[in-house]
Amino acid sequence: MAPKDNLSFSPDRLVTLAQILDAKAHLPNAIRHTPLLPLARDSAEVDREKLYLKCENLQVTGAFKIRAVFNRMRHLTAEERARGVVLASSGNFAQGFAFAGKTLGAPITVVMLDATSPYKIAGTEEYGAEVYLCGTDALARQPTVERLAIERGMTAVDTWEDPPFTAGHGTIGHEIMSDLPDVEQVLVPVSSGGVAGGIAAAVKLLNPKVRIVGVQPEGANAAYLSRRAGEPVAIDHWQSIADGLSARRPGEYPFRHLQAFLDDIVLVSETDIARAFRTILLRAKMLGEPAGVTAAAGFLAGKVDTSLKTVAALTGGNLTESTARTLLDMAAAAD
Amino acid sequence: MAPKDNLSFSPDRLVTLAQILDAKAHLPNAIRHTPLLPLARDSAEVDREKLYLKCENLQVTGAFKIRAVFNRMRHLTAEERARGVVLASSGNFAQGFAFAGKTLGAPITVVMLDATSPYKIAGTEEYGAEVYLCGTDALARQPTVERLAIERGMTAVDTWEDPPFTAGHGTIGHEIMSDLPDVEQVLVPVSSGGVAGGIAAAVKLLNPKVRIVGVQPEGANAAYLSRRAGEPVAIDHWQSIADGLSARRPGEYPFRHLQAFLDDIVLVSETDIARAFRTILLRAKMLGEPAGVTAAAGFLAGKVDTSLKTVAALTGGNLTESTARTLLDMAAAAD
Repeated sequence: MAPKDNLSFSPDRLVTLAQILDAKAHLPNAIRHTPLLPLARDSAEVDREKLYLKCENLQVTGAFKIRAVFNRMRHLTAEERARGVVLASSGNFAQGFAFAGKTLGAPITVVMLDATSPYKIAGTEEYGAEVYLCGTDALARQPTVERLAIERGMTAVDTWEDPPFTAGHGTIGHEIMSDLPDVEQVLVPVSSGGVAGGIAAAVKLLNPKVRIVGVQPEGANAAYLSRRAGEPVAIDHWQSIADGLSARRPGEYPFRHLQAFLDDIVLVSETDIARAFRTILLRAKMLGEPAGVTAAAGFLAGKVDTSLKTVAALTGGNLTESTARTLLDMAAAAD
Repeated sequence: MAPKDNLSFSPDRLVTLAQILDAKAHLPNAIRHTPLLPLARDSAEVDREKLYLKCENLQVTGAFKIRAVFNRMRHLTAEERARGVVLASSGNFAQGFAFAGKTLGAPITVVMLDATSPYKIAGTEEYGAEVYLCGTDALARQPTVERLAIERGMTAVDTWEDPPFTAGHGTIGHEIMSDLPDVEQVLVPVSSGGVAGGIAAAVKLLNPKVRIVGVQPEGANAAYLSRRAGEPVAIDHWQSIADGLSARRPGEYPFRHLQAFLDDIVLVSETDIARAFRTILLRAKMLGEPAGVTAAAGFLAGKVDTSLKTVAALTGGNLTESTARTLLDMAAAAD
């Protein structure tokens, strides 16, 4: 047999195409090869579209993270799976692990802050996972994860830094390149940098000529500033409706991928996000969460080269009716 | 060559599987093989779904009718195409013909009532079609179509009775059977009966064991009453938020297909429609117009056998933001 060295993960080196292809090959049937659909901003543009959406909002669980979750779970031993996994998440990773745990028969404990919305807690518990509330201090979350891991013999996963996540995210980039080989530009939302780095790696490793641009809200611009600084830096003030892009700094491992594979990072306003939400809803007939529509907002607000055949990752669609109404109100107020 | 008799259309006989396969084979690339996605009503149901949506809301132009439109246009001679087509429509057929006309280089005139919403007029004109307003009398529309056909040498198309439409609609049923061969039940919305008859014919001709149920709003129940009467009957009073299901009676040609291929027709309330809209939006992450979610409403409201593996045709997603808000309000008021 050929050596499998290019499949073994290390925090000291970037993800390989072999790791991404391996992740893709082992995704379970429950994970959908999501559609790639053109978005015409108006009727006159139909059949002349430049913007395509990679519809991970139509992924099982309503968001992209499930791919990376399964790739992480696959790299546990059978005994580790049986003992279960503990992680901190208030968002789509929580539901992703809960679903994977149910599918694979692994106990899942998710550490959340007391203030987490009942909607997200219920969504996680419905899949059969335990939600463990750790108080009001965000900094208490990871210590709680580590304490529970020791007390219960569970594996503590770090959704930012564990290398198999990046390869799992990369499967989205692989599907984009399979379904639209002549794509010229790919837009990705950036928070900790996980999905952005994974998609960027896959696309660039498959075709270095494709331009890859990260998009962040103006009030959630840690990766943007980190890129200027040349190293991960934290922001003191965070403010955006895009609650899925809540990282105050990029992760170490993801940031190295952003540096290696992103051509640029651009910023969009809250209004840009609200308008993109409305356009995607009424024109593409799809519901995106604020973080999910942020990449497309970069194109629709003209913050990137709109003459290029472009794919924007529409990363998720998990939001409440109340937030949806707020976004429509914001867009209307800006008309 | 084998005789092509099974491909020639006649109002005197039902659509054939050969006609449907021929329509499918000649659909242009612009027409999408739309995704078939499972709908989990809550997280606990993920991966155990019984209801799937055939997402024609993600079709180009945002609705299913474009398939039938292209099949109708294909059966015009080159000279007829060059002279153009005139039809009456205030809905998705208008945009469908406008788009097909632009694609095929055929002039399109659409006759509408003065009271047609500016949204629909603009949507049609943006594709380059002419909108001809004929006053306030709905009964004046078809005479106006026929007058314009004579004056301008255009072909008058009858979107209810021309047989090629039924074969075009049938391509949706063919895709359902290709993508989910073990489907046990298919739900279709019923207005004039065109799309319902076409889908039902395709599914039953491919697998007679699949149950096919039509769904109508309680206040738009002409086909339901016609089925009881054994012949097309008209209703005096029509009232529903599902403006796409506005037929006061089924068409003659479609009705024969409903009689031949439907197992049943069931009725749903306005609240059932609003709730289905909300569930499809928040759970499936997709926007459906009221007529588009009506078939799924039959399942979600328990009006059909929900133990069967079921596909509901989500026929379109063209509605205004205002109507979307009204539907959410209706669903909330019924909670």
